Amino acid sequence: MNREFQLIDRLTKKLPPVSKRVLLGIGDDAAVLKPSSGKTLLTVDCLVEGIHFDFSFCEPEEIGAKAMAVNASDIVAMGGKPIAALISLGVSSAVSEETLERLYQGLADHSKTHSIDVVGGNITSSPERVMISISLLGECSLEPVSRSGAKPGDVVFLSGPVGEAAAGLFLLKTKGQEARTLFPKLTTHYLTPKIAVDFVNVLNRVNKVSSLIDISDGLSSELWHLAESSKVGFFIEEDKIPVSQELSEAAAKFRQNLRNWQFSGGEDYELLGTIAPSDWPLLKKEAEGHGFILSEIGRVVPLERGLKLQDRSGKEIPLEATGWNHLSFSERD
Amino acid sequence: MNREFQLIDRLTKKLPPVSKRVLLGIGDDAAVLKPSSGKTLLTVDCLVEGIHFDFSFCEPEEIGAKAMAVNASDIVAMGGKPIAALISLGVSSAVSEETLERLYQGLADHSKTHSIDVVGGNITSSPERVMISISLLGECSLEPVSRSGAKPGDVVFLSGPVGEAAAGLFLLKTKGQEARTLFPKLTTHYLTPKIAVDFVNVLNRVNKVSSLIDISDGLSSELWHLAESSKVGFFIEEDKIPVSQELSEAAAKFRQNLRNWQFSGGEDYELLGTIAPSDWPLLKKEAEGHGFILSEIGRVVPLERGLKLQDRSGKEIPLEATGWNHLSFSERD
Repeated sequence: MNREFQLIDRLTKKLPPVSKRVLLGIGDDAAVLKPSSGKTLLTVDCLVEGIHFDFSFCEPEEIGAKAMAVNASDIVAMGGKPIAALISLGVSSAVSEETLERLYQGLADHSKTHSIDVVGGNITSSPERVMISISLLGECSLEPVSRSGAKPGDVVFLSGPVGEAAAGLFLLKTKGQEARTLFPKLTTHYLTPKIAVDFVNVLNRVNKVSSLIDISDGLSSELWHLAESSKVGFFIEEDKIPVSQELSEAAAKFRQNLRNWQFSGGEDYELLGTIAPSDWPLLKKEAEGHGFILSEIGRVVPLERGLKLQDRSGKEIPLEATGWNHLSFSERD
Repeated sequence: MNREFQLIDRLTKKLPPVSKRVLLGIGDDAAVLKPSSGKTLLTVDCLVEGIHFDFSFCEPEEIGAKAMAVNASDIVAMGGKPIAALISLGVSSAVSEETLERLYQGLADHSKTHSIDVVGGNITSSPERVMISISLLGECSLEPVSRSGAKPGDVVFLSGPVGEAAAGLFLLKTKGQEARTLFPKLTTHYLTPKIAVDFVNVLNRVNKVSSLIDISDGLSSELWHLAESSKVGFFIEEDKIPVSQELSEAAAKFRQNLRNWQFSGGEDYELLGTIAPSDWPLLKKEAEGHGFILSEIGRVVPLERGLKLQDRSGKEIPLEATGWNHLSFSERD
């Protein structure tokens, strides 16, 4: 058995047993799953060392867990349930096998938490950087909630504070490991974001959400995505956006722009959605029953009104798509 | 619209329209597909610049087409039909956008040829190397053919010559572009391998193949995979392995070891399988009717007899798993 197969063997041993849905798991040319009952959802996301994560301030288990979580979030944002995962790993020779095993442990643990079957994978050499590309298969028994159904007049809601992950990342970069004890909520939000996996249960009760998206690139970018897909504008009220005490404190203490964290930070993985005003009270109530505190942060407006933010002083300013750019063409830009 | 979205937009415009099976394609959090009728197959594979492909002697279109092909081959080797693809692209800043567009054109063209819907993708920065990770969803209406059903006495068959891709790669590396005109068959086999996508139609007629695998790592490695999964040994006769005239000529002309190319070369993407002797004549006949020339290259033997090769002189030698190692831990090995 050569080195590749030995490593694959050690890593796959960390994975929890698969569910009965899986007829044939890892170890053949392809995995075999029972036919799905609902519609099939498919998504892929890739995390690259030095771009999306950094071993200098993230534990390998945290990186693994987050890689699985951010993908699950995309399935959740369609109103679906993640089912099965394929893990494509690029392995840098600068990273020890112990680190890779711990990273895989994080992937395994997080897949277990959310009942995701890891059914296949691939390990290849990536000499300079570790890369983790995860593809997820999800299932959706209801009508999937796309980005394109927002209508003028709809309530815009958010499932939690935004900007915490960006603040957590800033703190880890500037204060190192100390940040974890100084601002545990913010660093945890960045390192191991909590995904709204159970939101599908809310949608099962109130299946009237007109559009839904998860905040990966930043609130302003996601509003632009919804605007482009739904062909609408947005009127957002800054003072309605939930802010945690830790976030305010961190912004004040380190003289950082709170709004910048909230709108351009990204990696929050909260849900941003829209719903008709008549259905909003019921959604809010059902969500509370499932542990989600939804906040109304503004309204959908006609396309021609564009995207506007009413700041805390009452002034209207244009909302730009200032989210995180995944490509850093630094040599050319 | 930032640079990432501009590039995604230009690349996705190259993709052919999706089929009716796709309810929601690229552009939302996840793609939505109609429920599948048969069993679901899932596989992922990743190609890395400098490890699996080289822009110095491969055209970008060829790299794209091959990336899609090698994944489709894994679905075919289960007895399935590839349906939908997710493309995760790592983009090096050293590679021009024109090159990326041509690579994507190859992906698009090959997906069209095999009626594969590209339903999602992801583009991230990979500063040093281009990486192409493709996940494929397939469908299987019959019982999938795994690696574990080979039984002592079974005929071992091969769908075509092996070693041609390895010879093609050797020629491209040593003779550069000239190799394409000197040995077009060999270089084509390496650059744009033909995948046995229609073999599923043969299986639909003769659904008795006991094990099946595609030759990606090399004939000896694949025989070891089947041996380990099926808990059997193999007796392979070297003179029964089909050899093309070009392959013999190239080995003679460049004083290369033909057996080494055949057994350790890899990237042939021919099918290697086993079937009971009583079913073999019918399989061979039906395959011929669908354009596949299957060759009997040996027999499955009991586990304790191990893996043996009878060479051209009639001598029995042990067959080692000398296939290609995808990981090159050169710094440590």
